Amino acid sequence: MTWTLDAEQIPALARGAAVLGTGGGGDPHIGALLAAQALDRHGPVEVVSVDDVPADARVVMVAMMGAPTVMVEKLPSLDEVVTPVRALEPFLDGPVTHIACAEVGGVNSTIPIVAAAAMGLPLVDGDAMGRAFPELQMVLPTLAGVDATPMAFADDKGNTGVLTTVDNAWAERIARVACVEMGCSVMIAIFPQSGAQLSQTMVAGSLTKAAAIGQAIAAARDANEDPVARAVEALGGRELFGGKVVDIERATTTGFARGRARIEGDGGALELSFQNEHLLAQVDGVVLATTPDLIIVLEHDSGEPITTEGLRYGQRVRVIAAPSDERWHSTEALALVGPRYFGYDIEAHRFDGEREVA
Amino acid sequence: MTWTLDAEQIPALARGAAVLGTGGGGDPHIGALLAAQALDRHGPVEVVSVDDVPADARVVMVAMMGAPTVMVEKLPSLDEVVTPVRALEPFLDGPVTHIACAEVGGVNSTIPIVAAAAMGLPLVDGDAMGRAFPELQMVLPTLAGVDATPMAFADDKGNTGVLTTVDNAWAERIARVACVEMGCSVMIAIFPQSGAQLSQTMVAGSLTKAAAIGQAIAAARDANEDPVARAVEALGGRELFGGKVVDIERATTTGFARGRARIEGDGGALELSFQNEHLLAQVDGVVLATTPDLIIVLEHDSGEPITTEGLRYGQRVRVIAAPSDERWHSTEALALVGPRYFGYDIEAHRFDGEREVA
Repeated sequence: MTWTLDAEQIPALARGAAVLGTGGGGDPHIGALLAAQALDRHGPVEVVSVDDVPADARVVMVAMMGAPTVMVEKLPSLDEVVTPVRALEPFLDGPVTHIACAEVGGVNSTIPIVAAAAMGLPLVDGDAMGRAFPELQMVLPTLAGVDATPMAFADDKGNTGVLTTVDNAWAERIARVACVEMGCSVMIAIFPQSGAQLSQTMVAGSLTKAAAIGQAIAAARDANEDPVARAVEALGGRELFGGKVVDIERATTTGFARGRARIEGDGGALELSFQNEHLLAQVDGVVLATTPDLIIVLEHDSGEPITTEGLRYGQRVRVIAAPSDERWHSTEALALVGPRYFGYDIEAHRFDGEREVA
Repeated sequence: MTWTLDAEQIPALARGAAVLGTGGGGDPHIGALLAAQALDRHGPVEVVSVDDVPADARVVMVAMMGAPTVMVEKLPSLDEVVTPVRALEPFLDGPVTHIACAEVGGVNSTIPIVAAAAMGLPLVDGDAMGRAFPELQMVLPTLAGVDATPMAFADDKGNTGVLTTVDNAWAERIARVACVEMGCSVMIAIFPQSGAQLSQTMVAGSLTKAAAIGQAIAAARDANEDPVARAVEALGGRELFGGKVVDIERATTTGFARGRARIEGDGGALELSFQNEHLLAQVDGVVLATTPDLIIVLEHDSGEPITTEGLRYGQRVRVIAAPSDERWHSTEALALVGPRYFGYDIEAHRFDGEREVA
């Protein structure tokens, strides 16, 4: 299936992507602004289902890499988004034919729209995570044995680089230190793949899903219904907790926005731990949800997604859990994105829609 | 002029290069070993005077980047030396025709010999500093407006990268953090130039000069003469101080071997400050010599050059100053490599062969 994405659809898509982005991927308003600007200038973008991408297509994922705390202060120009794709092309066996998203998230679902619009290329309806994760290698293509490199990166000053690494963890390590040195925010083009590989390596339909979630939230507001309940339904998720943000600790270290937030409500206090994305939700030491499942924070009444860098003292929020793509629960996948990888000494929970709120 | 470099000439060349390397550029014994191994396997290398390189030649500088303290523990294979040159070639308008040295120094005068031998290419008789300096942008090509990039880097694991930067300081910054992450030692191919540019950007004849200094030291030993005096004569330099190393502080920080050494002798105590290379020599607060002039430490009796990482408590040494290439004393050059750049709040001294030892 192929559909046309125009500027009018952007707010819903960006909002829904920020919901699926589990707190990461940058500010959805900024993402929306960028994408709308690109669609205005270059016209609408054709969105193609994973199944309809030709087997010999040359697909490249485009994203912004860095700390979201910095991303929100350093908007890329349209040209900057295209630069890493052009820098990568000499390393491929021909020009790029399709753009794809590495993750869903406020900025990283819309940056690929910018690239597709500016380059006049179709965009794949899918992403490589079905959520957002903080490191480059944390994608389904890694599990499927696809190389992250050759990958290209570019900053706002005009510096570019192309890496070829022995594994995807090395791509992350080298690109991360370069990204930090270049100002904690670079544009990347990564994971070149053929169309034939996508069925193994993508969460299909995630742009459509993001748009549907964003629309459900907007529709509930218009109908004076509960947007959070509608989002939970659209996600196939469960509301874990509601309350007020009473404490936030955060630090931007080694290129990531790390921290914790404490939310007090009727059921006690919920502690959220994050590294760009929300990774762990606990109430009084009882673990309610963990990475790789989705932990989502929505504004209490409006259902507006709140990113990790957008968390503020006094906000009234509701915390939601939703199941991740099933592939993230294999032993191999949990080694890549499970709680222990991030330094939390606990087992990964598996989303359970039936479990009572603690 | 063209001459042929074989394995027999390597020990003198490596020793003389380590003298000119002012404490930096890595262990000359290791450099000599590598070069001799490459010449044994691939045959002798043709060395071409700067004036005799064709104007349309494609010249690339090959070097090891990193902390010498790490370099001495991580010898590159012959293949590793070639990898960055091959990685760079797609960015040039044809294959590389000549290899050149970025600096003179124990390893960085011999690594280009390895590359030339392994690739069957001629080597330029010259280098881009006439000494060694710790950062990529600290070369005469920078003063002449030549870009360091495209540059390539490669590590021992098989990771490679190519950078294109807006200026040479950015090449240093990004390559340095990548180098540190990759284990504090990478091979680089940098400063692609045409043959026509070399007269502006090279210190001509520095391989010949290094070999002559190395031979003078060896000849003095054979003749039971003073090798240090012969080295001073070959350098056009001046002996500053003789004594015993009584204190060394060093730390490998941000990819550099930084530190200070205290040498006690009849004339008081001399303090040496270094960052990969010796940068400052002071006796009781009186500055005797500074970067960009050459500050060289030789073993007291044998005249063997001692690198900054080779300095040991109890060594009897003599400290020599020699003039740098005149181009390093311009205002613009001093901003790049003068004492203030390295954090020492003093003016650059200019070598004075007549001044008395303090």
